[in-house]
Amino acid sequence: MKFHTEYLTFNVPGRVGFINITEKCEAAVATSGVREGMLLCNAMHITASVFINDNETGLHEDYKAWLEKLAPFDASPERYRHNRTGEDNADAHMKRQIMGREVVVAITSGKLDFGPWEQIFYGEFDGGRNKRVLIKVIGE
Amino acid sequence: MKFHTEYLTFNVPGRVGFINITEKCEAAVATSGVREGMLLCNAMHITASVFINDNETGLHEDYKAWLEKLAPFDASPERYRHNRTGEDNADAHMKRQIMGREVVVAITSGKLDFGPWEQIFYGEFDGGRNKRVLIKVIGE
Amino acid sequence: MKFHTEYLTFNVPGRVGFINITEKCEAAVATSGVREGMLLCNAMHITASVFINDNETGLHEDYKAWLEKLAPFDASPERYRHNRTGEDNADAHMKRQIMGREVVVAITSGKLDFGPWEQIFYGEFDGGRNKRVLIKVIGE
Repeated sequence: MKFHTEYLTFNVPGRVGFINITEKCEAAVATSGVREGMLLCNAMHITASVFINDNETGLHEDYKAWLEKLAPFDASPERYRHNRTGEDNADAHMKRQIMGREVVVAITSGKLDFGPWEQIFYGEFDGGRNKRVLIKVIGE
Repeated sequence: MKFHTEYLTFNVPGRVGFINITEKCEAAVATSGVREGMLLCNAMHITASVFINDNETGLHEDYKAWLEKLAPFDASPERYRHNRTGEDNADAHMKRQIMGREVVVAITSGKLDFGPWEQIFYGEFDGGRNKRVLIKVIGE
Repeated sequence: MKFHTEYLTFNVPGRVGFINITEKCEAAVATSGVREGMLLCNAMHITASVFINDNETGLHEDYKAWLEKLAPFDASPERYRHNRTGEDNADAHMKRQIMGREVVVAITSGKLDFGPWEQIFYGEFDGGRNKRVLIKVIGE
């Protein structure tokens, strides 16, 4: 059984942004030598997501506006108790729950077994600092 | 180590619908011969979900109404930038994030290791065309 | 290849509550003897979640208020069709979709491969009865 572990680091300017990490995941599968198995890719920080969706800029803008409506940024201590601790990122902890922490992708014949439009994204909701993403490949 | 891969195809009439795929996942476990391991089941399209919840028609109607409120269908280019590309399904990309892309289920003693009410559903949010679901079983 | 399966039981008073189960997951990894692999931890009930986020009481209160706003409790048969079946927990089935059913965590060098703040929580949305959580560890 083969295992391969990689850590990616991102520093996204601004509060919210999306980065396509599909190629990095594909490279990790190639490095691992796994032909059949699974890839786990997850944010290691709790105000960020890894998710699979469309590589379309307009949709990403839609996601930003939609998440802002569902869980508005508000640094004041009134709306969110978490922001009474000195933090200002309670909204980011909520946005991350909507978009998810991780994806698990099948590996078949040495490739990520994807539908036609599936792409893997890192989603940042509290940017401006270094944050890590984990890739774990297991299989044979 | 054993691996088994299957692809299901669905064509759901209308925009939104849910299909119980539990038996198909159970059959994949039986075919695989895996006694201990994991099953991954994911939508291969980015306007659809695979999720685990209750096999109750009223609840499914509730989900439809709730998702429509959180992310309304609107084909016009005003509300969603994605729909300026000629698409009309930005809402479906959002509904899918709420309901999730995939489930990972434990296999114990050759069976899906489920609680009393867990059932696996395909969730369609932009129907009327063929779409695929992947099942990957790994274990021993 | 090694496999280890555990079931935890919780009985959360009130409707909604969060329990930190990180130590129980760490103990399962230690018991399994797995050095490289993955841990799956999922709610076995469909009105509960397992999720990874911050061990901060104020944030948990924020989650409760936010989920109540997105999917309000309403036992009456008017708002939710599911509650025409004699149930009163349709809201809990929705809250669970936002927070998710399961987490998959990498195991590296015999430990959960976590970022600095990642903690695993059981999230209850329809408490006052015994409910189970599954932990499955696979690897070598």
